[in-house]
Amino acid sequence: MENITIIEIAKMCGVSVSTVSRAMNNHPDINQETKDRVMQIIKEYHYVPNNSARNLKRSDARSIAVLIKGISNPFFSKMIKVFEQEIQKHKYSMVLQHIEENQDEVEVAVQLQKEKRLNGIVFLGGSFEHTRKKLKQITVPFVLSTTGMMKGVGFGDCSLVSVDDFKESYRMTEYLIEQGHKRIAIICADEKDRSIGKLRLSGYCAALEAHGIGVDESLFCRMKKDLNYYSMENGYAVTKELLDSGKEFTALYAISDSVAIGACRALWDGKKRIPEDYSVAGFDGLDIASYYQPSITTIRQPVEEMAEATIRILFQMIEKEIPYEKQVFKGELVIGESVRKIPE
Amino acid sequence: MENITIIEIAKMCGVSVSTVSRAMNNHPDINQETKDRVMQIIKEYHYVPNNSARNLKRSDARSIAVLIKGISNPFFSKMIKVFEQEIQKHKYSMVLQHIEENQDEVEVAVQLQKEKRLNGIVFLGGSFEHTRKKLKQITVPFVLSTTGMMKGVGFGDCSLVSVDDFKESYRMTEYLIEQGHKRIAIICADEKDRSIGKLRLSGYCAALEAHGIGVDESLFCRMKKDLNYYSMENGYAVTKELLDSGKEFTALYAISDSVAIGACRALWDGKKRIPEDYSVAGFDGLDIASYYQPSITTIRQPVEEMAEATIRILFQMIEKEIPYEKQVFKGELVIGESVRKIPE
Repeated sequence: MENITIIEIAKMCGVSVSTVSRAMNNHPDINQETKDRVMQIIKEYHYVPNNSARNLKRSDARSIAVLIKGISNPFFSKMIKVFEQEIQKHKYSMVLQHIEENQDEVEVAVQLQKEKRLNGIVFLGGSFEHTRKKLKQITVPFVLSTTGMMKGVGFGDCSLVSVDDFKESYRMTEYLIEQGHKRIAIICADEKDRSIGKLRLSGYCAALEAHGIGVDESLFCRMKKDLNYYSMENGYAVTKELLDSGKEFTALYAISDSVAIGACRALWDGKKRIPEDYSVAGFDGLDIASYYQPSITTIRQPVEEMAEATIRILFQMIEKEIPYEKQVFKGELVIGESVRKIPE
Repeated sequence: MENITIIEIAKMCGVSVSTVSRAMNNHPDINQETKDRVMQIIKEYHYVPNNSARNLKRSDARSIAVLIKGISNPFFSKMIKVFEQEIQKHKYSMVLQHIEENQDEVEVAVQLQKEKRLNGIVFLGGSFEHTRKKLKQITVPFVLSTTGMMKGVGFGDCSLVSVDDFKESYRMTEYLIEQGHKRIAIICADEKDRSIGKLRLSGYCAALEAHGIGVDESLFCRMKKDLNYYSMENGYAVTKELLDSGKEFTALYAISDSVAIGACRALWDGKKRIPEDYSVAGFDGLDIASYYQPSITTIRQPVEEMAEATIRILFQMIEKEIPYEKQVFKGELVIGESVRKIPE
């Protein structure tokens, strides 16, 4: 069934198109009887006034693309919810596109801005090592959201919203050290990672060194590349391997809560108690971290605020043409039940 | 920085636009030297050929809207991932829009199809009580995905993908009865719900009655309307209230895994053991159900397959103009550690 047009409505009412338009817009210059007849027909035929015509501002396909690496990560789903709501408030629509782990997000963005009439782009997650020259190919405003701030990478003048992953990871590691842990295994990203994974690993190493505890690379437990990254199943697989290896450790720090939960389950299945036998810590501050048994000690990222800031900055770039803005949020150390203090 | 155009490329090379085009398309009718020069300039200036022009089929804004109630539900985030991948395979883009609990999804859809050039719509979750007449306003193909199949509701000839919520809920309740439970509390939706919540509650009631156990409405624990529906926090709040009420029950069946996890945490915080003091069961089969401690006995919905079927059916409607298709999937009863058998 085709949508009925304003022309057909006018024909059926025996009036001009502009009369139909006046009736719909409550224009004073139309008699009530005519108006009632028009509105009656409109109702009967479910005519929906086309806002694209009524409101020129709405007529260009106002849309924001969100390009996301790791779409099933629960950390991102909360952000996507906020993005969607905030973008809707601005009367734009949101186009969501998943980027494969091996795909180049800038290339996808450049292609997308050609094919769609995009007004802005959010890059969510992932690593982000692109030259300034390459980034210049993106001609619409964009914000990097929860993307690691790698030093020495040439995107100094881009908008960015994140926590300081290095610093927050340093803090978590320091907390574990303060609880008396010295043999702290870490579930981290692979060697090639140049994103938040690398930053969190660096923070861990720096904290150990600052406290005179040598970094023991045999306690680096790399996530498996053939499993979903930052997933429970990855944490489970890596922890099972760690337990089987017989390596000594008292605490296990996973660089995401999902991974930490997988780790807990593997310890549980290996008949280990948390935190009596092993302490576990996470990162992100997912809801499930506080509902899990035991609740997980973690760094909570202010995810809603970060998502709101992302959209706020993007629209300031679109509407007020500010060049860029960086906003770094502070994480919160949330003490759960999963870490024990080792008596001195 | 503006994107460089094919015209500018042609100028810089000192050739015609059609020569540039021939070079890019590997046309035989162009000499190698010219071609090399053109490709060199294209590379240098990062010229991205505009697919909208090259490929007419891609030039209309081919997009599928996904309208979703309950965007932060982890059950949906897995489906969204599959939607996105499958839609991308068809070279369409996905527009994601959140529907508020009190919003009318058909009205949103009708508005959206006016403003955007949509090719199809997926309605994900939510209740769906609309007259046939109203549904006719939607002029593009659409599929209802994981939406309750209410009997007597006038959308008999729509495409639909779901499990049989009544039957699966019956099965779970029957399993609990077989384990010796008679006082089975249920965390369910509010009285006004006409969606999967109502179907799952009906299945529970029918199973009790079939086994000669009267339905005790005092064991209906309604989710709180002021908290996120189907969330952990809702399950927590409702279970706390149930415990405080002093009502007798041996098993607690929550109509979603997230709610079940909230319930477990509330029991745990109330110093109750699962399953020794109370058995808990869920519904959906989220990953976390198997990673939780204890793992949650649940009905697993084949979420990937359901999402794939949704998109497959939608594109059959778009491309092959089939009128509609219904596909009902079978759930799987997953036995976890959260239910105990009561000795006879």
